[in-house]
Amino acid sequence: MQNTLLDTKLVINKIESGFEVYLNHVLLLRHTKDHPILFVGRGEEKIDMYRGNFDIQDYVIERIPLKYAEMNENNNECTIDFSNGDSGEVLLNLSMKIEKGRLKMDYTKKDVRINRFWLRIAANPDEKIYGCGEQLSYFNLRGKNFPLWTSEPGVGRNKNTYVTWQADVKDKAGGDYYNTNFPQPTYVSSQKYYCHSETTAYADFDFRHPEFHELQIWEVPKSLVFETAETYIELVEKISNLFGKQPELPEWVYDGVILGIQGGTEIVEKKLEKALAAGMKISGVWCQDWQGKRITSFGKRLMWNWKWNEEEYPELDKKIPEWKENGIRFLGYINPYVAIEGDLYKEAEEKGYLALDNQGEIYLVDFGEFYCGVVDFTNEEACEWYKQVIKENMIDFGIDGWMADFGEYLPTDVVLKNGVDARMMHNAWPTMWAKINYEAVSEAGKLGEVVYFMRAGYTGVQKYCTMLWGGDQSVDWTLDDGLASVIPAALSSGMIGCGLHHSDIGGYTSLHGNKRSKELLMRWSEMGAFTPMMRTHEGNRPDDCFQFDDDQESLEHLARMTNIFVTLAPYTKSLVKLNSERGIPVQRPLFMHYEKDETAYDLKYQYLYGEDLLVAPVHQEKQSKWEVYLPEDKWVHLWSGQEYSGGYAAVEAPIGYPPVFYRKDSKWKELFLKVSNI
Amino acid sequence: MQNTLLDTKLVINKIESGFEVYLNHVLLLRHTKDHPILFVGRGEEKIDMYRGNFDIQDYVIERIPLKYAEMNENNNECTIDFSNGDSGEVLLNLSMKIEKGRLKMDYTKKDVRINRFWLRIAANPDEKIYGCGEQLSYFNLRGKNFPLWTSEPGVGRNKNTYVTWQADVKDKAGGDYYNTNFPQPTYVSSQKYYCHSETTAYADFDFRHPEFHELQIWEVPKSLVFETAETYIELVEKISNLFGKQPELPEWVYDGVILGIQGGTEIVEKKLEKALAAGMKISGVWCQDWQGKRITSFGKRLMWNWKWNEEEYPELDKKIPEWKENGIRFLGYINPYVAIEGDLYKEAEEKGYLALDNQGEIYLVDFGEFYCGVVDFTNEEACEWYKQVIKENMIDFGIDGWMADFGEYLPTDVVLKNGVDARMMHNAWPTMWAKINYEAVSEAGKLGEVVYFMRAGYTGVQKYCTMLWGGDQSVDWTLDDGLASVIPAALSSGMIGCGLHHSDIGGYTSLHGNKRSKELLMRWSEMGAFTPMMRTHEGNRPDDCFQFDDDQESLEHLARMTNIFVTLAPYTKSLVKLNSERGIPVQRPLFMHYEKDETAYDLKYQYLYGEDLLVAPVHQEKQSKWEVYLPEDKWVHLWSGQEYSGGYAAVEAPIGYPPVFYRKDSKWKELFLKVSNI
Repeated sequence: MQNTLLDTKLVINKIESGFEVYLNHVLLLRHTKDHPILFVGRGEEKIDMYRGNFDIQDYVIERIPLKYAEMNENNNECTIDFSNGDSGEVLLNLSMKIEKGRLKMDYTKKDVRINRFWLRIAANPDEKIYGCGEQLSYFNLRGKNFPLWTSEPGVGRNKNTYVTWQADVKDKAGGDYYNTNFPQPTYVSSQKYYCHSETTAYADFDFRHPEFHELQIWEVPKSLVFETAETYIELVEKISNLFGKQPELPEWVYDGVILGIQGGTEIVEKKLEKALAAGMKISGVWCQDWQGKRITSFGKRLMWNWKWNEEEYPELDKKIPEWKENGIRFLGYINPYVAIEGDLYKEAEEKGYLALDNQGEIYLVDFGEFYCGVVDFTNEEACEWYKQVIKENMIDFGIDGWMADFGEYLPTDVVLKNGVDARMMHNAWPTMWAKINYEAVSEAGKLGEVVYFMRAGYTGVQKYCTMLWGGDQSVDWTLDDGLASVIPAALSSGMIGCGLHHSDIGGYTSLHGNKRSKELLMRWSEMGAFTPMMRTHEGNRPDDCFQFDDDQESLEHLARMTNIFVTLAPYTKSLVKLNSERGIPVQRPLFMHYEKDETAYDLKYQYLYGEDLLVAPVHQEKQSKWEVYLPEDKWVHLWSGQEYSGGYAAVEAPIGYPPVFYRKDSKWKELFLKVSNI
Repeated sequence: MQNTLLDTKLVINKIESGFEVYLNHVLLLRHTKDHPILFVGRGEEKIDMYRGNFDIQDYVIERIPLKYAEMNENNNECTIDFSNGDSGEVLLNLSMKIEKGRLKMDYTKKDVRINRFWLRIAANPDEKIYGCGEQLSYFNLRGKNFPLWTSEPGVGRNKNTYVTWQADVKDKAGGDYYNTNFPQPTYVSSQKYYCHSETTAYADFDFRHPEFHELQIWEVPKSLVFETAETYIELVEKISNLFGKQPELPEWVYDGVILGIQGGTEIVEKKLEKALAAGMKISGVWCQDWQGKRITSFGKRLMWNWKWNEEEYPELDKKIPEWKENGIRFLGYINPYVAIEGDLYKEAEEKGYLALDNQGEIYLVDFGEFYCGVVDFTNEEACEWYKQVIKENMIDFGIDGWMADFGEYLPTDVVLKNGVDARMMHNAWPTMWAKINYEAVSEAGKLGEVVYFMRAGYTGVQKYCTMLWGGDQSVDWTLDDGLASVIPAALSSGMIGCGLHHSDIGGYTSLHGNKRSKELLMRWSEMGAFTPMMRTHEGNRPDDCFQFDDDQESLEHLARMTNIFVTLAPYTKSLVKLNSERGIPVQRPLFMHYEKDETAYDLKYQYLYGEDLLVAPVHQEKQSKWEVYLPEDKWVHLWSGQEYSGGYAAVEAPIGYPPVFYRKDSKWKELFLKVSNI
């Protein structure tokens, strides 16, 4: 028996002791009494946070299969009552309908004690899965489970490395393959559908089973949304329709690299002079410590009191317009916390804008040898106040961009103004933080002129975030936490509507003996030239990290990379525009344009930069050749002009010549030839 | 309403929507609809073994609370039908009765698909828990969960140490706090009852909850047995009545140390000569490599073909009686596997005595660069054959003792003669292995003359094992895997009927840069003198381990310790006798004799050696003083004669003078004074 609802796309078949749900021929659910798709229950979690690293344990008290499904259809809606016993109490109700071309599954729990939910989506054994936010270790997520909880991403992120082990032992900070600043309960299947869960609760999506994907959520989610498409391009467009489109980048971003410099006005001037003398194209200087700094055992940290620090940056008010006139913007830094020593903290305290503990006192969060208050974004007045801080202290001061850092540290036992359990607000926080930035910039009339870049994210961040950055990579060659990890990060976030990505050139975290080499910095700049924004970082321990101006060779190397970046700008701009209009990411997996190429689905360390460039960054040290996979097409190696068709190829890849190919038939060919001559 | 069964000790109260079960005033179960005690369900486990180290993952598909209990009483039995729904299908039946003074709870599953079982036993928040086999990291188990699965105990056993990390990275062998060769689903509560589960399935006993202990078992267990007592002494007696009594040790064991020596006849003679010249009391030499050796990357390994290796030990047949005449016994080594290169393997293969894989081929187990067959102890003929090997090749050859090593490596996918799933036989294996040894010795009429020592164990090993040894400690000072760990191991196994314990003097495992120091060896010998058997070990890498005869000072130190051991023998013998008669362990926790002393319940690194000696081994390096806790009594420090009453005391503890105290009123006072003058 076949039941077709008004919209012909949804087909619900009754089968023996169950039902099947197809959306445009994709089997999504197949429920029978003996193989139920839904389980509900109760759990008691234990969540410990140490400086943004979470230890989360669950004790599942009950996990009840909902074997019995009773279906009702009326109008455009199909509702199903689920129970465990034959004529037992209904524990959950599912209602399905098509809304704006999407299948919406709404869930209602019938027993208030239920706080765990598991749903099995039908799977094929050879299906691939992508997305779930910004994933740093895996791009195809099949074969693993992914806890979805915004947190520090971990230092090392692989229990077999020395750095991870030391980070775990000393700071509980080693992390694992799934830790990310930006998780999201949204995945994309190689069956060309996406599935998004409307929830901010802790979730764990398990893609290990051959026959089903099991989505675990620590509440009954309001709804799940599915949509299918004919192509991946169409699919990402649909995803961006759901989450909102990202704005375009300011024009000035394409003018060169943003140099991460700290230490005060004089140092900035000296470094600028040196860089310009080497022929470097510079669009901005980014001075995190514009608001002051402090030294901790971790390295150089900031003051976290968001206003110009005159002692650190004398005459900055005069320098900013002066630099701007010379085409160099000034960028700063802010995050959603205020340090206890600062006057912003005092102001927020007086006005009651800080989140509280369960004793009614201000909740102080340990950020590593200093303490901060959490601005309570569930309090409208606090949001307005913080937006005002951004507008007055930053935008009006002449700051044209900033790192909008953090967002992952909301403790689960904090008491918030809106009265909602902090466990439910934790994942929501990054998007609220993005929205503060977005609104401050919009209200100042500066959208399209200011760029802020974020590492934290969650559902909805897409529309409020002008640029992602890949977070705090280690200054090394490891796959899970070094240069390489940025690539799956860009690809996975691109699959779910965040199509603008870049990273700290050279990486950031230098701990436990890890020091940044000249070679790493140079390889990282090469990759940076083929992303929509170039920005260097000194690292947390600048003295342990090779800096771009440490010798003439690296100065010239970076200068050349900025020339490549600037020359490529018309092409890059067209990609950014496409992302803002249609949600097609700038960095794309190969299968997005070569759907029939089976190999393309498992590549995570190379990408298409738009449709016409293929980039395979050298992510291992001491390489002069590099193996690249090319899908079936006509490809030209950017530097040698040699032509290739599909398959694996080993190309020369000395420093300065990253493996990049363009499509021979590209309309941008002339531009690419120009680049190849730099 | 109160229901009292025939035996007045068991009281079952009906309460609203449930019941309570008291055994001699101890509340064991309290079930209500909203707080059910039983959960059943289904799980799919994934078990990977790598050289005796197991990675065990469970996917719990269903965990159903059995909320509804319907009680029936007839004669001496109370049976309860449990279901999930109000008038739902009965999923489990529990029947309770008193049998030989014990409460026996029998469980019957009513749905064949059930393979997971969780039972909550009522707990007090301040209750302490002991036992669960031989536990090396914890003695009081409250606050942790303990997976119960016989395995390698781990190298390092603490994720924070370098050795553990390296062992994990290189060999998956780091282990954790709960890993043990000898687990057992039996615990002792400070409410003075024991609880034993009749099962060999994987289990995990969780003592983290304030209001209940949750016993997880991967089958519905046949039964649980409970018994209470007025005192801990009475309780351990009752436990040994359940599991059987251990035999006494041979007289010759008290004659001195058993020296672990390898390398052949000549080396043995030389070492003996040197030791005797230093005044050492020697009861035996223990030559693991009597059957040949091999060198692997791990270190010195053995040949695993259980017969005299004449090349390695020329004239051993003549030497054994010669040494024996001089009061020095010869000890060997065997385990339940046969190496593929040996003739025993060939014989077993021909006779069909080796366990198979699911293709019908002989299952070869990787023991670290060499492969062995598993003698199938579910095959009666194979058992008889292996007993014959022991009798002919060892006992008849004149061997008076051996390490009966291993027993933990039964792979879970091996096919056994009895047709039982290897997952159910895995935990049973150590006891089967013990029984082989026991029967070989009994049948040879050598019980009480031969001693074999085992590291692996499980329920029932008590009666078949003449002596435990603490397994393969690392040659270091770590709490979880060094000298210290042996003490909770002795105490916990003593609580469940294994009252004879000793360890490798000096430890065994030297890996990842870990080397045995002279000081460690000396401190370990000091502890050994206050255990019922002294035995040294060369270590897996003898060249990286300080040896007893490496210098004159250590020779003399060990010699003095053996004199203490021999002088103390009458006392020790009385303790061993008590263990064999009444199951009271030789090494006892302080609370066993000082029940009212609250501090005594949490001490794990000191012990009562019988009722009259208190031993607090120095388990840290570079100590000359040591802090000891003394329960309220009159204590005399063995070396200084200084008197103490209860409380903490810091005593002088230079090398050679371990912190030992005797009870001033002891009838053994004269003997102790003699010891104090050595």
